[in-house]
Amino acid sequence: MADRPREPVRPVVVDAMGGDHAPAAPVRGAVLACREHGVPVVLVGRAAEVRRELDRHGAAGEIDVVHAAEAVPMTERGAGAAAGADSSLAVGCGLVRTGAGAALVSAGSTGAVVTCAIRGIGKAPGVLRPALAVALPQLTGGASVLVDAGATADPTPEMIAQFAQLGAGYARLVLERPDPAVGLLTIGSEPGKGNRLTRRAEELLGGLPFRFHGNIEGHDVLAGTVDVIVTDGFTGNVVLKNVEGTVRVTLAMVAGAGIASPERLAEVARRYDPRSHGGAALLGLAGTVVVAHGSSGAETIARACVVARDLASGDLAARLREPAPHRAGG
Amino acid sequence: MADRPREPVRPVVVDAMGGDHAPAAPVRGAVLACREHGVPVVLVGRAAEVRRELDRHGAAGEIDVVHAAEAVPMTERGAGAAAGADSSLAVGCGLVRTGAGAALVSAGSTGAVVTCAIRGIGKAPGVLRPALAVALPQLTGGASVLVDAGATADPTPEMIAQFAQLGAGYARLVLERPDPAVGLLTIGSEPGKGNRLTRRAEELLGGLPFRFHGNIEGHDVLAGTVDVIVTDGFTGNVVLKNVEGTVRVTLAMVAGAGIASPERLAEVARRYDPRSHGGAALLGLAGTVVVAHGSSGAETIARACVVARDLASGDLAARLREPAPHRAGG
Repeated sequence: MADRPREPVRPVVVDAMGGDHAPAAPVRGAVLACREHGVPVVLVGRAAEVRRELDRHGAAGEIDVVHAAEAVPMTERGAGAAAGADSSLAVGCGLVRTGAGAALVSAGSTGAVVTCAIRGIGKAPGVLRPALAVALPQLTGGASVLVDAGATADPTPEMIAQFAQLGAGYARLVLERPDPAVGLLTIGSEPGKGNRLTRRAEELLGGLPFRFHGNIEGHDVLAGTVDVIVTDGFTGNVVLKNVEGTVRVTLAMVAGAGIASPERLAEVARRYDPRSHGGAALLGLAGTVVVAHGSSGAETIARACVVARDLASGDLAARLREPAPHRAGG
Repeated sequence: MADRPREPVRPVVVDAMGGDHAPAAPVRGAVLACREHGVPVVLVGRAAEVRRELDRHGAAGEIDVVHAAEAVPMTERGAGAAAGADSSLAVGCGLVRTGAGAALVSAGSTGAVVTCAIRGIGKAPGVLRPALAVALPQLTGGASVLVDAGATADPTPEMIAQFAQLGAGYARLVLERPDPAVGLLTIGSEPGKGNRLTRRAEELLGGLPFRFHGNIEGHDVLAGTVDVIVTDGFTGNVVLKNVEGTVRVTLAMVAGAGIASPERLAEVARRYDPRSHGGAALLGLAGTVVVAHGSSGAETIARACVVARDLASGDLAARLREPAPHRAGG
């Protein structure tokens, strides 16, 4: 996630109308991404509203705006399917599909962004199903990536093997781990432990071009055991939300015991909020998409732009198109 | 978990040789259960060793000892299958099977206890598969029960419906919730969200004789949303270990921020340790079995004896033998 300059200057497309604090937060996030992280951006949304926000930061001359008349509502259910061609999401996906944009960042509802992105950008060649990747802070410092965090609830073992490869690519490009260790989340660290799905996935993972650590368990998720935690989208989504809820409850217990001030605890909570680490990246599409949490402020959206830029600098799905397992390299 | 006296005075059988601190911790736990909670107990293990420990508490005259020559090692893999007929586990299961004991409590390895109990006690009539139930402390106070926490990794929807009924029985008998609310752990609170397994299970749960709250998500696990959290044994085991790991990491972060003393944080950790709330109950057998954590001290084993006594006071599987759904009552 270093702020290194990149050759191709295609901008990251920021959905100005997505999120609870749109357009103010996405517009300010885009300005921060551009000014503080050197990420070229373009904003998509209602041009007049977006320009008014840009003016507040004196940035009207710095950042291009592409007009889109509609905003997709933040309600989860069916919003993506109902999103019209004039919506900021659909127009943003179009910019990524045509190559005018390097990646899309949106703080819109996850369901809507995923639906629109799959329809509007499409899967990369060779990809069976997309997966959501979320960076989780680790006890040992830094972050690991959890994939799939909820895009595909009923994957096959072959899909899980692809999620692992896409997640390893994320770890290389975003987390800067040149040789990421991949762990399969299951219910026993010994080989062969798990359910039918993980036992078959475990067999496949051993033959892929990354360092397969083996099986990991629920207590390894934040322990820094591996760089990539691979699982099905059902388990991944339950675990992601369980981490969020358990952190919250544990801090409330500490506050309730009266042994630390709520303000200091809130700081710890912020540092540990998985949603603040650049959002959820939808991997496996023919373009890069990062979904920031709906409640994201400008800093979170700016971080999501950095993640999107880093992901767009590589071709995550390239290895999936290579012929066979047991290749060299990692 | 109140210390109410019960009519049938059949003792709870305590495996004196199970756990990292055997026989000292199980023997002292049995003495505590008997003296402080009024639970009748019998100890199973190497008689000479067990009596020596009983003597240390002046309890040789109070508690019966049944001799078993072998101790099952604490290594997880294959220990249960290898446990001989002379092992304390096998002898203890035999006492429950014949009705001489009301229930078995062991701090031996979960795998070994589950294997021995299924073989030595057998399933209750009508039960498809056993399930592990673990009480989790809740933010709102009290505890909820997570079931299945790992006994059956690949259940059918029908098995999940049975786990819910067994879990509701646990909530009534152990948590003293006369009308427990049951939630299905999945990845969206709206009806129909989830994977293939939970969508089908959701349909079945609506027709069963308990209050079905509906779908819950990972952040609800400690939030006090429901009394019974029902899930498959794979997800349940991942979540249980994820809760343990996330509590540990969060407290380490708080300690690392220097805003609370490690001693006070350790107290919070103890209060929040799921393993200290009476262990994991194996539901669905023809007798009651409670597995305490291997590292259990005497107090934890005593609590497991109380849970075992409470569970043995009811017939958890009775409702499973009733004819059809849509019955009255709850």
